[in-house]
Formats: sequence, C-alpha cells, structure tokens
Amino acid sequence: MSLNAKKITHVCLDADDTLWENEPNFRRTEREFYALLKHKLTEREAEDKLFQTEMANLDTFGYGVKSFTLSMIETALNTLDGEEAARAARKILDLGKNLLQTPVILLPGVKETLEKLTPKYHLAVITKGDLLAQERKLEDSGLLPLFGRVEIVSKKDTSVYRSIFRAWNVNPENILMVGNSLKSDVLPAVAAGAQGAWIPCEDNWKHEQTEEPENPSYVKLNALTDLLTVLL
Amino acid sequence: MSLNAKKITHVCLDADDTLWENEPNFRRTEREFYALLKHKLTEREAEDKLFQTEMANLDTFGYGVKSFTLSMIETALNTLDGEEAARAARKILDLGKNLLQTPVILLPGVKETLEKLTPKYHLAVITKGDLLAQERKLEDSGLLPLFGRVEIVSKKDTSVYRSIFRAWNVNPENILMVGNSLKSDVLPAVAAGAQGAWIPCEDNWKHEQTEEPENPSYVKLNALTDLLTVLL
Repeated sequence: MSLNAKKITHVCLDADDTLWENEPNFRRTEREFYALLKHKLTEREAEDKLFQTEMANLDTFGYGVKSFTLSMIETALNTLDGEEAARAARKILDLGKNLLQTPVILLPGVKETLEKLTPKYHLAVITKGDLLAQERKLEDSGLLPLFGRVEIVSKKDTSVYRSIFRAWNVNPENILMVGNSLKSDVLPAVAAGAQGAWIPCEDNWKHEQTEEPENPSYVKLNALTDLLTVLL
Repeated sequence: MSLNAKKITHVCLDADDTLWENEPNFRRTEREFYALLKHKLTEREAEDKLFQTEMANLDTFGYGVKSFTLSMIETALNTLDGEEAARAARKILDLGKNLLQTPVILLPGVKETLEKLTPKYHLAVITKGDLLAQERKLEDSGLLPLFGRVEIVSKKDTSVYRSIFRAWNVNPENILMVGNSLKSDVLPAVAAGAQGAWIPCEDNWKHEQTEEPENPSYVKLNALTDLLTVLL
C-alpha cells in the first residue's frame, strides 16, 4: 500500500503521541499509582483493576486526565481502607493535577516537518480528550498558527470522521489522516474515505491497541518526519 | 433596549439552564455533599470551602461535572480523616456519576418555541463544559435535529464568541445570543457584536453571578417562550 500523494490537499494530525509525548506521562503516573497500592496488590493486579475501572467508567466519564484521575481514585478507594485509602486518594489528586500541568514536549522533528508541509498542504488537528486540556496543550505546543482547523472530539469513530470531513466540505480522498493509534486515528478515518498514515508508538494504552490487518489500507511510517519523504 | 429583530438571522442558545434544567441538579448534589461533612462543617462553611477549592482548580480542571466531582473529593479529603474521609470520597464518586447520568428535562415550552423559530431562523447552540457530557445531553434532549451548528467550548469570553462568529462567517449583528448567564452568555456575546437576550434563572452558580448594568445592552426575558413575541 502506498499513498496517492497527488490527491492529498489536507494533512490531519492526531495530537497526543503524534505531535507530542503523552502516553509516557500516563505510564509514569500509573507506576506512581501502583506504588500506592503495593501493600495490597501486585503491579499487575493493580494494572488490571485500574483498567477494569476505566473501562466500566468510559461511557460515563469519557477520555482524558480527569476521567483517569477519577478512575484511579475509585480503584484506590475500592482497594484500601481508612486513612490509607484517604491518603492514597489525596496523592492521586496531586498526580492528576501534575499530569494536567505537564509541559508539552514535541516529538523529534515535528515542528520542522509541519513547517515544511504548510506551504503545500492545509494542516489540521483531530484529537480526542478533555477540551480544556487539549486546548492548553495546543497553545503550549507553539504549533497552533500552523493549523487551519482544530477539531477536539469526544471519540474517534468512522461517523465522527465522516461528519468532520463533511463539515469541512473536503472530499475524504484528498485527506491524509496521520496518527499513532491504528484504532482511533487510522482505521476509522480510512473507513470514512480518507488516506491513512500510521506512526506506531511504543507506549500505547491497552485500550488503543488493535490487530494490524494483513492487507493494510494505510501506510506505516517510523516517524512524523517521514511525511516529508512521502509528501514532498 | 429592544432587539433589532429584522437584522437577526441566527439565534444561538446556551444549553444548561437555558434549554434544560442543570443548576438544580448541581444544587441538589451540593446539599448531599454538605451532609457528608456535617460533623465538621456547617452547610455555609462547606459551601465556602467547596467554592474556594473549585476556584483554585478552575484553571487546571475547567468546567463540568468531572471537575466538580474532583473538587468535592478534594474538599472532603481536606476536611475529614481516616475511614470517614474514604467513605465520603466513595459516596462523592457516586454523586458525580449520578449527576452525569441525570436524564435531560427540557424547560417548559422549549421544544415548541424552537420548532416555531426554525422555519425563519438558523438555530445554533454555544455551550461550555465537558465535551462528552454536553454531547450526551444534546443527544438525549431530542433537539439536535433543530440545530444547524453546535459549539462546545471550554470557556465563553468575548474572544471565543468572536472566533465562533468569524468561523461561521456571519455578521455578529445578525446573531442573537440567548442564555441564562449574564456573565457567560450575554455580556461577552454582546461585546463581540451580537445582540443578546438574558433569561435569568434562579439557581445560578455563584461563579456565574454578575452585576446587572444600569443601561443594559440586551433584552431581559422571563422565559424562552418569550422569544416568540420578540422574534415572530
């Protein structure tokens, strides 16, 4: 599979772990969380219990740091008792605030790559999560002036991509969607008619993991900087 | 002050407490929360402490039920000790989930009013809060097919209204912004050039309260149904 680069007029990018580091911050926070439960649960047990809580809460809470923080608190309160539970919950509130205030660190070459693409392509961001948190990260990233459009959505499925492309009034085959999550960024955008580029990241959250298809309908790149090779 | 109704082509509505009940649900939840602290704090003290926590967290957490839930948990953990603190935090998680799952109850006459306006005006929603929660309420309300545009934003100030009106490519003087919050819905939209209609609601959150100006630049209505009188 290769891209039909001649048709591409719009390059859409996922944000977390495509433009900047995100999952490593979550993984680090999770490890601090597991340590709070270590008298009661192994790291593996704590991981399973947190993941189950997050999945049970997903429809109610949605994605993002606040949801993650609430699920960590719930898991701790269901694992620990008395003052130990209260102390863990206080600590988790701090972990959540720290995560929300983590400075944005761009992935290598991101800014230079986008600056080289911007004379030839319309650039846009399509990302999911907390509205305020994503706005703040975009602002902090310094990349905002490069993007003609920013869409922050509560989930990324085929119908969401379809309605975004329709609202933009752009033919999906003229759109390249780029991201680190096969499940959220690439496959549903491709199903909505766009072209897709997948840039795997090592630290993907379990919920974002999915099987690689045998006959991929997207290209796989090693890094965002590879867009220069395929698009310029 | 009266509206220049002839110029209006777009009627924009706030959602919470303009289209459906919201603040009464928060106030009820707050009373249940105060009861959890009653051995340590009077209702008034608990109210003050919660409000201070919410204001301290506003920049980090933003608006919405998840932020409110996290601030209630923080207040409880800073007020109570040991198992009493843990028990209160568990109960607050339930209060937050219940609030997120509260069925949408439209205010009287809302649906009929919007249906009568829709042949003559473009209707839109501009609301702030949790992305997922606001999407769900719009979906549950049954009103979604009436709205040409829905904007869910993290805050409502003059520059946010300006950029929305610019993105729509509509002259602000052709827009009427309608809502229950003078501070978030009416004054900043009017400052961005739109016309404004304020429909006060009794239960407004302290943070949304502001002085009524002596020479108002907006109209004040008793209920959304009054739009029919001024617009048709």
